[in-house]
This record gives sequence, C-alpha cells and structure tokens, in this order.
Amino acid sequence: MKRIIFLLVVLITLPTFAQTDAETIKKIYNASLSNGKSYEWLDYLSNQIGGRLSGSLNAERAVKWTKEELEKLGLDKVWLQPVMVPKWVRGMPEFAYIETEPGKTINVNICALGGSVATPVLGIKANVIEVHSIEELKILGKEKIEGKIVFFNRPMDETLINTFSAYGGSVDQRSGAREAVKYGAIATIVRSMNLRLDDFPHTGAMNYGDTPINQRIPSAAISTNDAVLLSAMIKLDKNIKFYFKQNCKQLKDVLSYNVIGEITGSQFPNEYIVVGGHLDSWDLGDGAHDDGAGCMQSMDVLRLLKEIGIKPKRTIRVVLFMNEENGLRGGKKYAAEAKRKGENHIFALESDSGGFTPRGFSFDCSDENFNQVLGWKSLFEPYLVHYFKKGGSGADIGPLKNESIVLAGLRPDSQRYFDYHHASTDTFDVINKRELELGAATMAALVYLYDKYGVNPIKNKK
Amino acid sequence: MKRIIFLLVVLITLPTFAQTDAETIKKIYNASLSNGKSYEWLDYLSNQIGGRLSGSLNAERAVKWTKEELEKLGLDKVWLQPVMVPKWVRGMPEFAYIETEPGKTINVNICALGGSVATPVLGIKANVIEVHSIEELKILGKEKIEGKIVFFNRPMDETLINTFSAYGGSVDQRSGAREAVKYGAIATIVRSMNLRLDDFPHTGAMNYGDTPINQRIPSAAISTNDAVLLSAMIKLDKNIKFYFKQNCKQLKDVLSYNVIGEITGSQFPNEYIVVGGHLDSWDLGDGAHDDGAGCMQSMDVLRLLKEIGIKPKRTIRVVLFMNEENGLRGGKKYAAEAKRKGENHIFALESDSGGFTPRGFSFDCSDENFNQVLGWKSLFEPYLVHYFKKGGSGADIGPLKNESIVLAGLRPDSQRYFDYHHASTDTFDVINKRELELGAATMAALVYLYDKYGVNPIKNKK
Repeated sequence: MKRIIFLLVVLITLPTFAQTDAETIKKIYNASLSNGKSYEWLDYLSNQIGGRLSGSLNAERAVKWTKEELEKLGLDKVWLQPVMVPKWVRGMPEFAYIETEPGKTINVNICALGGSVATPVLGIKANVIEVHSIEELKILGKEKIEGKIVFFNRPMDETLINTFSAYGGSVDQRSGAREAVKYGAIATIVRSMNLRLDDFPHTGAMNYGDTPINQRIPSAAISTNDAVLLSAMIKLDKNIKFYFKQNCKQLKDVLSYNVIGEITGSQFPNEYIVVGGHLDSWDLGDGAHDDGAGCMQSMDVLRLLKEIGIKPKRTIRVVLFMNEENGLRGGKKYAAEAKRKGENHIFALESDSGGFTPRGFSFDCSDENFNQVLGWKSLFEPYLVHYFKKGGSGADIGPLKNESIVLAGLRPDSQRYFDYHHASTDTFDVINKRELELGAATMAALVYLYDKYGVNPIKNKK
Repeated sequence: MKRIIFLLVVLITLPTFAQTDAETIKKIYNASLSNGKSYEWLDYLSNQIGGRLSGSLNAERAVKWTKEELEKLGLDKVWLQPVMVPKWVRGMPEFAYIETEPGKTINVNICALGGSVATPVLGIKANVIEVHSIEELKILGKEKIEGKIVFFNRPMDETLINTFSAYGGSVDQRSGAREAVKYGAIATIVRSMNLRLDDFPHTGAMNYGDTPINQRIPSAAISTNDAVLLSAMIKLDKNIKFYFKQNCKQLKDVLSYNVIGEITGSQFPNEYIVVGGHLDSWDLGDGAHDDGAGCMQSMDVLRLLKEIGIKPKRTIRVVLFMNEENGLRGGKKYAAEAKRKGENHIFALESDSGGFTPRGFSFDCSDENFNQVLGWKSLFEPYLVHYFKKGGSGADIGPLKNESIVLAGLRPDSQRYFDYHHASTDTFDVINKRELELGAATMAALVYLYDKYGVNPIKNKK
C-alpha cells in the first residue's frame, strides 16, 4: 500500500515539475500584487526624502535609508560602494519674462538645465531668435544670431509610438549652447522635452563639450505652453525681448555611494546577476518615476525571490546606482570594480523608464543569447508582457557590456513618461500601485529564469 | 519621354500599393496623434456637461451636443433614435457613520447603489453583520441576520492581471440585497468595486430581482478605506451600529435617444459596421473614462477616416448608446431597429473599458471569422497592440449578436480603470491625451480593415 501511495505521489508530482517555471512566476506575480513593498517604499522615498540630485543632502539620506531597508531584508551582504560625484546646485528659483515693450511683461516658466552656468546677477535680457535644429544655426550665421538668445523650439515627434524615440530625436537641443555660442549667442532657451502642453519646465543634463569655461552661456528649459507662447509672440514682433535670471553653480566633486545588496549564489557564486536603477534624481520633483520606481522595484526583486522561497544558484545583486542623471559615475564605478575583482557578470537588468504597466524588455546581447530569451517569452504572456526585442538596456549597466553578458531594460508603457520626466510633476501621486508592482514582478520573473538557467544560448530551453 | 515617366510612375507606385494597409494604418495613427479630436471633445463632454445619468438634463445636453458635433463632420446622415429609459435620481447626498456608543461616531463615505430604494426619511441605524459572499448568508441564517445591516466585504482579487475579471468576481455583491432580505436584513452596505484603498464610494447598478417593491431594502456602496475600517471595528466590537440615510428614487421612464452618425457605403451600403460607446454615465463623476472616452473615440473613428481620405465601401456608423449603465435600453433598441429594417450588420466594435493605452481587442465571433482577424494582427504590432483573443465584446453591441456578425471590444490597459469606475474620481484630468488618441486610431484601423475586406473568413487575407 505504501508503494502505491508513493507511486501516486510521484505520478501527481511529475506534471507539477514540468510546470515549475510557470507556477513559480505566478507565485512571484501574486506575491508582488498582494504583498509587494515597492509602492510603500516609493512613498517613503518620494514623500519623506524627495528629489535627490547627486551630491545633495537628500541623496545622502536616500543612500542611508535604502541601505537600512536592504539590511532589514536579511540579504547575505549589504554595502556602500564609494564614488566621487559632480555637485551642481540650482540655487534660488529661476525667473523669466517676455517683454513686448519696456514695462509690459509676461512671466514664463523656466528652469536652468543641469550643468548650465548662471546668468549674470542681474539676469540677461535680449532679443530672441527661434530655431528648430542645431543645423539651422549655421544657415542663419553670426549676423542673425550674435548678441541674441537662441530659442530651440523643435517639439518631440508626437507620431512616434515609442516616446523615448521622440525624446532621442529632440534632446540634442539641450546641449545646443555649445554650438550657438560659436555664432555669438549669449544664452539659449530650450523647449522642454515634454509631449504634453503644460506649464512645467523640464530640466535635464546639458553639456558644453569643449567650450572653454569662460565662454559658456546660460541655458534654460521653458515649459511647452510658454514655448508656444514665445514662438507666437516672436512671429508677431521679432523685436520682443526675453529676460531670465538663473542662479545655478557647479561645485567641487563630493563623495557619494552606490548602494548594493546581495544574495550569494549557492552553486555558482561567481556568476553575478544585477538588477538595478539609479538612486539619484533631478531636484524639481521627487524622482518618483525617474528613477525611484526602478530602485524600489529592484529592491523588491530580491525580497520577492526570498518571500516565495527561491534560493538562487547564482549571486543576485540589487545595485542602486548614484549619479545617472549628470555623470554616470556610479555605473562606471560599479563596472570598474567588477572588472578589477574579476566578477563574472552574466546578466544585468535596469528599470529606468518609469513605474508604468510593464510591456516587456529590450535586450543588448548576442543573437545567440537573445534566442535563449525568446524561448521564455510565452511564460510572460499571461501577464500581457509581449515586448521582447533587441535594443538598448539602461545607462547605468551599460559600462558592464562585454561579448557574453546579457544587458536588458524593462520596457513599461511609455505614453505618460515624459509628462513627468525631470519636472516638478514627477511625484508619488502619479504612480499607480498595481502598475509598479507588475513591473517588479516582471523583473523578478526574468531574474528567476536567468538564475535558474544561466546564460546558455540554447534555443527554446525551458 | 512621357512614356518613360509614366513607366517610372507605375514602377514607383506598385510597391506602394502592396504596402497600402500598413501605410494607411500609419496615416490613421499619425492623424490621431497629431490632429485627433477625441481629447478636445472629451474635455467638453466631461467639464462642460459632466455626469449624465439616463433621463437627466445632462444626458439630454450630451445628446444635443454630440449630435451637433457629428453634424459638423459632414457625415452622410446624423439622427437621433428615440428610446424610453429608466430615470433613477440620487437626490440629496448620502450620509453615514459608525457609532461605537451613543454620541460617539465616525463619518464614513457611502453612496446609494443605482436602482436602490431610499432609506426611511430619518435613516436606518442597526448592528452590522459582515459577510464575504452571498452563500455565507445561508450559513448564517435568519437568526444572525434578521434586523441587521448586511455588510458585503469581499475585495476584488488583486492577483488577477485582467482587472475586469476581478470586477466580475466581486460584483454579485452589489445585488446581494435581494438575497439578504430573505434572511430579514434591513439594508446592505457593499464594499466598493475598487482595487485601490481610497475614500471614494463607487456606485453601479444593483438589481432586486423578483423582490416585491414593498420589501426592497436600501443598498449602498462604501469606500474601500471605510470598508476596512468598518470591518476592523466590527472585529473589536460586534455591537457597534451603522447609520445611513440615502434619498434616491426611481421615477417613471422618460424619452431619450441613441445618437447616430453614418457614412453611407459606396459599394455595399447594406453592409453595416458599427463603432460606439455609451453616452450615459453614472452621476458621481464626469463619466470621462466610463464611457465618455469610448464615445469620443468612436466619433473620431469616422472623422479620422474622412480626414485621411478613405471613402468606405460599406456603411460605417458611430452609435452613442443611451442607458448602458442601468438598463441597456439603447443597445436593445438599436438592435431591434436594425433587425426590423433588415440592416445586415457585419461588424460592431465597442470601446467601454476606459481611455487607456490600447492593448488589443477581444472578439465574440465564429472561429472562422476569428481566423480572418488573426491575419491582420501583424499590422498592429508597430503600435504595440498585441492582444487578439476571443472573449466578450461590449454590452451595447451584444444585442446585435447572430451567427455571422463579428463583435469586438477595444481592450485598453486595465490596471487603473477601477480606480475611477463609477466614482467621483472619473474626471477629465485622469485622461491621458496620447493614450486616448492611440485607442481611437486602433479602433479606426480595425474599422478600416473590415470596411476594405468585409467579413470574409479566409485565413491570413491581407
């Protein structure tokens, strides 16, 4: 009788084993949706800490708090990895207006672009010349540009389905100052990288290239509504003037940290899997979507795996990178240290595209490795995660790239992202709990599969 | 020379013809994202008209305004289809509190469920018994229920990816009054159909079944936060009392209308394609997602086809159905009239799941017809529209069902929908312009394909 029962148990157990991956992934999603921590953590990070630009006190507080939270999870190791980061400060709020004639002004919403120099203490007032591309500067020439403020006003392409492509197609204007200065421009104003018409200026890094320090001109972003207004007013009267004052400053580099937590692998401890986001954010909002969401999801990946009882074969690390926004020092430092220590990183996943409903992943890897991933695609179908394509991954994990590693980026729905990106609107109230949790689960499922099977380019292995 | 040019034109034109469907669909999406009207219309409907329960003055205003807007589009016909609808009115706002002992009360947020009777003019105060299902009533029996308020507190299942399935799994509680009354309950309070914990009660139709009018008991929805509070307080002390007063009333049926616009088919005018949503909404919010979004998208489908120069072979109608929420009279009337006139409806598409990023469609049709649709799936891939499954379509178009018609429902991302559904939170500010426009374009693309090819179950036709 005992033998029959044993046989029955074996027979019942067999099909269960065959379904293990699907079942484990279901457990991951259930755990995230019923008992996820990402939303509660993000509430704290956004509302109790807030915006955390590299080198700021808030960035320090975020480092300290995330380390403490990781320590509570009972990981095998939690530590800080020191990294020197640039420190740029905005100072007093910016101020700007359009002047049609002396005394007749309309205030507009601007913010200094990250890395920009300040205006002179009394501000800058000059005529404005509107352009739609950097190439247009050459056509206009010094005669039409000298002594003026150049207004870059090429909108993001609203017809592109992937809003990151629309961003990529317009963001060169943010560093237009380094070209405009060659034609005698005294400042630049850049239409915010925002697909929506609203009143919020969006900051973001600009770069002077090899422009000598004493020739750098101030550069600010203007809200999309005010860009439309300014453009209309220039068409009516090209002699109108634009005034602005900004008070930002580049200080000396300061010490900061990547925050790292690890579950050490039971079988292949020197095969490393990284899941992460960037802990720094711009200063205008609370960095809820960019990239508090990605950081809290990454922390929850390790917690979810523990919660459902997975004991990883490989070493799984959560890395909260410092300084993605204006230097990428954290990402570079992490990769340099990994190389120095001979750590074999096989897979790295970044979430840095907002906390929206996950649609899939994009992969930066060899074709062979990509074929392995395609074999897992059907496991994600019940969660409406369809998008598996080659493409970029994430800025912070980019420095880890080599011939054999698989780099991946979570791809959430992108339609709303640029409503909030780098603006004061990037706050916790625009985060949806379920969407955030679905993202964390989707990441954990992929990490689970890479931990279980390793990077092993055999087609359709399951 | 002219002949060579002619030949060149032919040669250049040929491959273009082969790509016609993909190109036309790209034009539809571009037109919607660059020049769509759905968002501007929905702003008006939500903010200038607002909630529009069947039989209300606002429903009349919505009929008048949508008819005028359709008339501006230069369609071949625009008309109103009369239909008698129920008229239920909420009256003065509801009021409710939990009483731990005389004079010690906590106010809570409730709203009458649609179709409920009022409380007596002084309200109802009684002990509360919490249940999680209708079946539980039988187990408890008359002894434990009689003279009490039954509190239905089964939450929506948060682990379901399709939130409409979670809704379907809990919504029976809304009509629990008809069962509770059999055990002597004097009222029911129902946890709002909302996956989020917040303070907003969500209304929706309840149904007394065959309960005689003089035995009907008042039924209200309570916010999820207050459901959690009430449950916790009952656990501490089962003798606490719940008081509520509601002032709603069922009046006599009144005359209303479906609003219909038509582009008459050039080749097959008696083959009808319908695209629509429901114009009525609940009264608490502005009916922005439910279903202003679907109505404005449907109107824009016809406008978009006209804008890009499509002259339909078949007759395409936009139908804004009246009274989906509490009677479905509009949907039934439209189908009855179609049958009476012998109109051959081949395809009907409803958008009634919110104005969020479109993920695909579900189809209610024969397997053969479904195979035809699958042949078009790849045309939607560039727009990240992946979901093509058999399943339900839409309540309003349901009465059109027969053996040969294809019924379809737009399936937008569902994660946020029940945050707003039937609540005061369903307002224009929670609509994203691009998401709404992508939905309209996705609908227009499918309507374009059905107009071009008809319902013709040949596999993989393109």
